[in-house]
Amino acid sequence: MSDRLARFLPILNWLKDYRGDTFVSDALAAVIVTLMLVPQALAYALLAGLPPEVGLYASMIPLVAYALLGTSATLAVGPVAVASLMTASALGGIAEAGTPEYVGAALVLASLSGLMLFAMGLLRLGFLANFLSHPVISGFVTASGILIAGSQLGHILGIQGGGHNLLEMVEGLWQQLGGINPVTLLIGGGALVFLYLSRKFLKRGLTGIGFSERLADLTTKAAPVTAVIVTTAAAWYFDLGTAGVNLVGEVPSGLPDISLPSMDPDIWTTLIPAAILISLVGFVESVSVAQTLAAKRRQRIDPDSELIALGLANVAAGVSGGSPVSGGFSRSVVNFEAGAQTPIAGALTAVGIAVATLTLTGLLAFLPKATLAATIIIAVSTLIDLPAIKRTLAYSKADGAAMLATIILTLVQGVEAGIIVGVALSIGLYLYRTSRPHSAVVGRIPGTEHFRNVQRHKVEIDDSTVVLRVDESLYFANARYLEETVLELVSDNPEMKNLVLACQAVNEIDASALESLEAINSRLEDAGIRLHLAEVKGPVMDRLQRTHFCEELTGQIFLSTYDAWKALAKKPTILFKTN
Amino acid sequence: MSDRLARFLPILNWLKDYRGDTFVSDALAAVIVTLMLVPQALAYALLAGLPPEVGLYASMIPLVAYALLGTSATLAVGPVAVASLMTASALGGIAEAGTPEYVGAALVLASLSGLMLFAMGLLRLGFLANFLSHPVISGFVTASGILIAGSQLGHILGIQGGGHNLLEMVEGLWQQLGGINPVTLLIGGGALVFLYLSRKFLKRGLTGIGFSERLADLTTKAAPVTAVIVTTAAAWYFDLGTAGVNLVGEVPSGLPDISLPSMDPDIWTTLIPAAILISLVGFVESVSVAQTLAAKRRQRIDPDSELIALGLANVAAGVSGGSPVSGGFSRSVVNFEAGAQTPIAGALTAVGIAVATLTLTGLLAFLPKATLAATIIIAVSTLIDLPAIKRTLAYSKADGAAMLATIILTLVQGVEAGIIVGVALSIGLYLYRTSRPHSAVVGRIPGTEHFRNVQRHKVEIDDSTVVLRVDESLYFANARYLEETVLELVSDNPEMKNLVLACQAVNEIDASALESLEAINSRLEDAGIRLHLAEVKGPVMDRLQRTHFCEELTGQIFLSTYDAWKALAKKPTILFKTN
Repeated sequence: MSDRLARFLPILNWLKDYRGDTFVSDALAAVIVTLMLVPQALAYALLAGLPPEVGLYASMIPLVAYALLGTSATLAVGPVAVASLMTASALGGIAEAGTPEYVGAALVLASLSGLMLFAMGLLRLGFLANFLSHPVISGFVTASGILIAGSQLGHILGIQGGGHNLLEMVEGLWQQLGGINPVTLLIGGGALVFLYLSRKFLKRGLTGIGFSERLADLTTKAAPVTAVIVTTAAAWYFDLGTAGVNLVGEVPSGLPDISLPSMDPDIWTTLIPAAILISLVGFVESVSVAQTLAAKRRQRIDPDSELIALGLANVAAGVSGGSPVSGGFSRSVVNFEAGAQTPIAGALTAVGIAVATLTLTGLLAFLPKATLAATIIIAVSTLIDLPAIKRTLAYSKADGAAMLATIILTLVQGVEAGIIVGVALSIGLYLYRTSRPHSAVVGRIPGTEHFRNVQRHKVEIDDSTVVLRVDESLYFANARYLEETVLELVSDNPEMKNLVLACQAVNEIDASALESLEAINSRLEDAGIRLHLAEVKGPVMDRLQRTHFCEELTGQIFLSTYDAWKALAKKPTILFKTN
Repeated sequence: MSDRLARFLPILNWLKDYRGDTFVSDALAAVIVTLMLVPQALAYALLAGLPPEVGLYASMIPLVAYALLGTSATLAVGPVAVASLMTASALGGIAEAGTPEYVGAALVLASLSGLMLFAMGLLRLGFLANFLSHPVISGFVTASGILIAGSQLGHILGIQGGGHNLLEMVEGLWQQLGGINPVTLLIGGGALVFLYLSRKFLKRGLTGIGFSERLADLTTKAAPVTAVIVTTAAAWYFDLGTAGVNLVGEVPSGLPDISLPSMDPDIWTTLIPAAILISLVGFVESVSVAQTLAAKRRQRIDPDSELIALGLANVAAGVSGGSPVSGGFSRSVVNFEAGAQTPIAGALTAVGIAVATLTLTGLLAFLPKATLAATIIIAVSTLIDLPAIKRTLAYSKADGAAMLATIILTLVQGVEAGIIVGVALSIGLYLYRTSRPHSAVVGRIPGTEHFRNVQRHKVEIDDSTVVLRVDESLYFANARYLEETVLELVSDNPEMKNLVLACQAVNEIDASALESLEAINSRLEDAGIRLHLAEVKGPVMDRLQRTHFCEELTGQIFLSTYDAWKALAKKPTILFKTN
């Protein structure tokens, strides 16, 4: 009983061993993640088309909710880039960005995807995420990164961007190219160059002057904080707001109110498809980050518990003024490297964000949006992996096709079309492959009990007895293919009196395949040929014995192919077919 | 070149050997099939809500078109029960039954499904039909049979029926129960009893008085003709039309006009989903009938050529006043048993129908619709196979569930919903099964080179070297499941230093599974464990060698599990786990 309780409440497993030094580790990690999270929270709110405080609110209560139920010690939950893009895409059809209706719809979206994740966890439906194949996810993330970077270009240039796919974005930027604000471009471009150079050279420079590897790494990751501080100070000192530079502006100081989201059924039903996609993508990304980090410490995370924890975190976001959250890759890595030991680190990060919200909002009002846009562009540049297309195509044409389709459709049609077509295509290509299983007519290697493909080996065959080896489980998609293969074999071998199906690779025979076997049996009977089976696996045999098939079978069921050969082959001749 | 031409035009294969006695056989079969087809053509037009002549037109030019391109010598093409029901369902949403718009839409539906079949044939997409699993088709045909019988009850009772699902039908009949026409009921009920008794006892009776088996069978199958003649004569003699009995009425005498169907793009797009379903169902039924009959004579049919032939037949129906056609089961069997040798028999049947249309329409005007309804009910009663539900459920719960869902949805929601849900469910259940493949930790059977499941056998194991056998191809849906299995294994075996994946059952590793293997490799490396592979199949290995995986692999690739064991196991101990 207490085991089952601990499964549902992982906190019971680790809280009893919680000690002072664990707290110190967690607190240190929390401070570092908080420093990183403040600009990210503002930036991802900007990306999602939401007011800056929504990003901060999404970084408080949801983190505490995850800490209560999550199984990962180091996963840093909160707003992330891809989910923010998907949020913007989903809400774009409902209301104007930044309006109260838009913010209200974001709460519904978070609550809805939270409830979905929670229900999937209770129903143990985590395996559904497996149908997002790696090439589809990878293509989707690459295309999302390109869309995100594109969406931020307007902020860097000081003009209005917009659009939910690449064509709309390019068109939007092109039309306003005359309105570029030079000061904004100076700040945004400067931040971009600074962040790019820091990422590329700072760590090496710091280790060169004696910093430890870990400290150099963490300092490098803090570069966005420096950019934020410097550009905010400049905006305040030079009063850049009046020079036409877009600033974050007034951020309400104080903690979020707890209130239920809108219960308008129209909004809920409209957002269902988007919520499903955000849930699945967020879950896949979170679990893969959490598993990667847990394995480094020989820990385990439980995907179904993660669903419940992420579900609760999103519901918490929905009732506390936030937006959809999931586990972020870069922050989780920082959390791990900074020494987080338990989910308490996440809860302490929430405290850090609360403190920042209470104290820093006056200063953050002077933060230029161009700086945030620069941090986003640098952050998502790591998501874009174009060489993966070539790599995947070289390994498998089917996987490469699914990946390319996902990328192109995401760029051209938007996130939802991209991922849906990618998933449908990868499932379709898999089904196509299994619908034409490999099979081979085999003959006996002289003097042995081994049987090999007559096309490839010098083997003994017998005109009256043909042995067909089937290399796949038999199910509805390939059952008729087997019928056709057998009928072709019959018309090609007029002397045939016995057909043996060698079933060592058949793990399952479903009802359709059983019907096909029955049809094959009776058609062969009409043609004066007996059907035999050999090497049928135990569980498959158990099932067949529950039917009339074994009685109706015109031939026998042999334990091995060799037994069948001994009993049936009359005048074996040696054959060598060259290819 | 001539081979390829012969593949596209099967007529070239058999026409050169066509002799006088073949013609006599074909002509005899054509006469018998024509006798059977006249009432069926009228009846299925009635079922589809179309004027009687449409049934006759669908039985002329389409049969000639099929004869030119079909590969089956005996398939009898024309209007059939299930396609007629689906036609009624598809057209019901477009126009009122019997109106010129309704008839025009039937022409579009035939042309559209013809073009689809034709295109599928050219693109060799016949395998798509494989995704209609046997349980789904069987459930669909059973439910269609029930719906068809229900739709004809109104004609037997002399009231207006209607409705596209069982609930609508029951409601429609219930409301008009007061309007039953006793004379119609007498004719319809009488025909029903006569046909039922003929089917049940006539053949036995005829063989009892010395008829040959074959002649008795053909005479029995001609019972509907007797019912048609007797009730038509009665209707004419007693002038039953004025007694409120619905008669077929004026059938235009003469051959159909050739004209293009309506080109209204709205109608074409609206009918696309219905045309896809009618095409697939018709194709599956035709091919399975044709294959069954061809196998009896050791002949072969080519499914892709069948697609082209059925496509052309439907296009022919669409431009010659017909409705969707496919290969009918009962007529094909009669054609086969009556001795049809080549597709010429089908073309001669078309001539027979043309003669009937030119000469008999005056008489057919007196044919009571109740008689046609009775022939339909008796014909479809053979389609209804309720015991199959129990049989399928006993064999496989997944297949049984897909079948039940198809039946219930077809009955309650109509034909389209039923078949779509059935197909989606059977694909979903298959993917679910393959997403959780069987795997087993194996140990060495002492003194041998064989490795078996540690849960089932007394085997040698080694604390530092764990061997995991994977019993399925690795692809995206089960790749993460493998990761989880391995990570669980790692946290359960703190002493582990080597993990060997035994891959004898792995026929494929797709890009997702490759990423998972890479992730497993690097996570195990983080945990100080080396990953090895054993028994990798040739084609799988070829692909892996095109990637960096083999270089990054922390361990080795062994030819056999035993080689790995010899190299890695340090202190084997014998273990016997009881279950």
